Amino acid sequence: MRTHHPAPIRAAIASLPGSKIREVSLAGANLPDLIPLWFGEGDEPTPAFIREAAKAALDRGETFYAPNAGVPALRQAIAAYLGRLYGRDFALERITVTGSGMNAIMLAMQMLVGEGDNAVIVEPMWPNARESVRIMGAEPRACVLEPGNDGWRLDPDRLAALCDARTRVIFVNSPGNPTGWMMSTEEQRALLAFARARGIWIVADEVYARIVYDRPHAPSFLEVAGPDDPVIVVNSFSKAWSMTGWRLGWITAPASLAPVLGNLNEFNISHPTTFAQAGAVAALEQGEPYVAALCRRYGEARELTLARLGSFRRVRLTRPEAAFYAFFAVDGVRDSLAFCKELLRSAGVGLAPGIAFGPAGEGYVRLCHACSLPRLEQALDRLAGVLDG
Amino acid sequence: MRTHHPAPIRAAIASLPGSKIREVSLAGANLPDLIPLWFGEGDEPTPAFIREAAKAALDRGETFYAPNAGVPALRQAIAAYLGRLYGRDFALERITVTGSGMNAIMLAMQMLVGEGDNAVIVEPMWPNARESVRIMGAEPRACVLEPGNDGWRLDPDRLAALCDARTRVIFVNSPGNPTGWMMSTEEQRALLAFARARGIWIVADEVYARIVYDRPHAPSFLEVAGPDDPVIVVNSFSKAWSMTGWRLGWITAPASLAPVLGNLNEFNISHPTTFAQAGAVAALEQGEPYVAALCRRYGEARELTLARLGSFRRVRLTRPEAAFYAFFAVDGVRDSLAFCKELLRSAGVGLAPGIAFGPAGEGYVRLCHACSLPRLEQALDRLAGVLDG
Repeated sequence: MRTHHPAPIRAAIASLPGSKIREVSLAGANLPDLIPLWFGEGDEPTPAFIREAAKAALDRGETFYAPNAGVPALRQAIAAYLGRLYGRDFALERITVTGSGMNAIMLAMQMLVGEGDNAVIVEPMWPNARESVRIMGAEPRACVLEPGNDGWRLDPDRLAALCDARTRVIFVNSPGNPTGWMMSTEEQRALLAFARARGIWIVADEVYARIVYDRPHAPSFLEVAGPDDPVIVVNSFSKAWSMTGWRLGWITAPASLAPVLGNLNEFNISHPTTFAQAGAVAALEQGEPYVAALCRRYGEARELTLARLGSFRRVRLTRPEAAFYAFFAVDGVRDSLAFCKELLRSAGVGLAPGIAFGPAGEGYVRLCHACSLPRLEQALDRLAGVLDG
Repeated sequence: MRTHHPAPIRAAIASLPGSKIREVSLAGANLPDLIPLWFGEGDEPTPAFIREAAKAALDRGETFYAPNAGVPALRQAIAAYLGRLYGRDFALERITVTGSGMNAIMLAMQMLVGEGDNAVIVEPMWPNARESVRIMGAEPRACVLEPGNDGWRLDPDRLAALCDARTRVIFVNSPGNPTGWMMSTEEQRALLAFARARGIWIVADEVYARIVYDRPHAPSFLEVAGPDDPVIVVNSFSKAWSMTGWRLGWITAPASLAPVLGNLNEFNISHPTTFAQAGAVAALEQGEPYVAALCRRYGEARELTLARLGSFRRVRLTRPEAAFYAFFAVDGVRDSLAFCKELLRSAGVGLAPGIAFGPAGEGYVRLCHACSLPRLEQALDRLAGVLDG
């Protein structure tokens, strides 16, 4: 898009693509009886004990400026949570609270890439990492996963071949959105060794770390990296604690970066919403039964989704290992955006078009199964008419 | 600061200065009986009716993703508020809700400046605009205000001389932090004519628009600019509604930029905290009596502050026209950071060092008078020992 002003805006910004998921959701906004499975969030509000903690903070008058790195109680709760989860100690200085996982990625890109630099991004991927690289004037390079019989696979040689002297970042999102790809501990070790040797940062988006169905958590770079390794792990309260609207996440980084990350918070949002951080403390300290129940619920939805989709004649499904999506190719579909818009009327179901996740996603669509079983069954029945016709 | 990693971070980021106000506040954090007047916020929490509105939104389960541009009810409330305040119509498309005034400035700089560009900033100024320019790889240029008998003065010729073919932005903060400088309508018209002719954007930080003592609001670029002029006005809920910890602000821009600003929100924080936006709606719709009472309260504190400081022998005070600061030079002080640290112990009062606001602020200190009268009187009594000795 171009503005009508003689005063120019940056070309990199004028050409930023709008979200194609939002485009489908706007097209379907006023359709009666639509079942929307397009966004990456559950269908239930944040649990009451978390909301009550934020309300209590409002009652206590926690409405003032807070430290750049986050409210101390929350940083402590995060360090303790990571310690319980991964069986290691995490120094407080390694933790910076951010205004969402997205904002954490933006801070990382501000810190690491500028004009002339590049970042290698494993795709198909949630599009926002790519755009944050572009905003900083740097070049995103896609390393495409291969769909196989037992899931998506990263080719380390292909990734290495994409890196050059101006590569500052390798961005991986595991468990992955939209693919459900999950890196193994061995793959993480190998990638870390490569990054160390080449002086490249790994930015690991682990916001789906807890949305897993066969173990307590996905393999994490926090388990294989030392405290001073060039690794920045991004996390979020959005998925495991159903807090998408709270805009709270965190970064785990080498302690030496604490002053830099505090400064970057200062110059971006100063700090996340003060009283919301009290909700996040409650999520970490009292939230394990909730996370377990959520995964059981999403796990049942997942079984149903994979079984039904797998039986549809037009669907080629690469089994997701984790997260709460099914990402599948549809025979005959070459324009996933047009197909998803068509589905709004032909099936009354809202899905996300694969092209939203990079060129490698074209021909695919994404279904979010973080939804009640009856509603999901209804959606799959409707989809059967189009996908199994 | 340098990291201990072979993997580099950007030089522009490694060299970002930490806030010198934060440096003083950390030095004074554990001193008993200190009176802190260093930060730009009042001493009372957000009024109850605003907190209750956010709590009600939490009870209603407003914890999901929201539109990038902001919750529609809030955008409508902002457009209506601006309409009442300035007696003009503001189209909804001109309003984008942001995660603080600071974040609004960062979005503006992302949109407008990149490597090789520059932004002219009127100083002494709150340091964050300058750093957001540096983060984007561009050059900040200071246009220094002159202290005079009847307030601070901007020299338009000096400003024009700083602009060249790579100047993308002129940044003004009026009413100004720390100076209390307030641009007149005539000065705004002249600057707008210059910006139009040169194809340069004005980014006007008007977060103190309502913290005025002799009129309902400060002169605003929204009163002199047409809807398609190259003007981006930044506002915030922090100051007039005592909502510093909420991290909510907004941008008023040409409607043609709405898709771009929505995209930038998406790739920075997606959108501000969903349920907090309900509090901001209440602030705008029910907050006028509160804003009036706040200005009366701050106005009494201001009179006391200016009268007392004006009588101190070591103080040279340039009268602020608006906002809630006194920014004054202290005879014999050449290192304002060291002086403010010393004051912590010698007077038991926390002030902000002038150097925090750019080199032009050296030798000055900033006192925030958004404070109860008894407390302020006590602080001024203590300061008298040092400043009137």
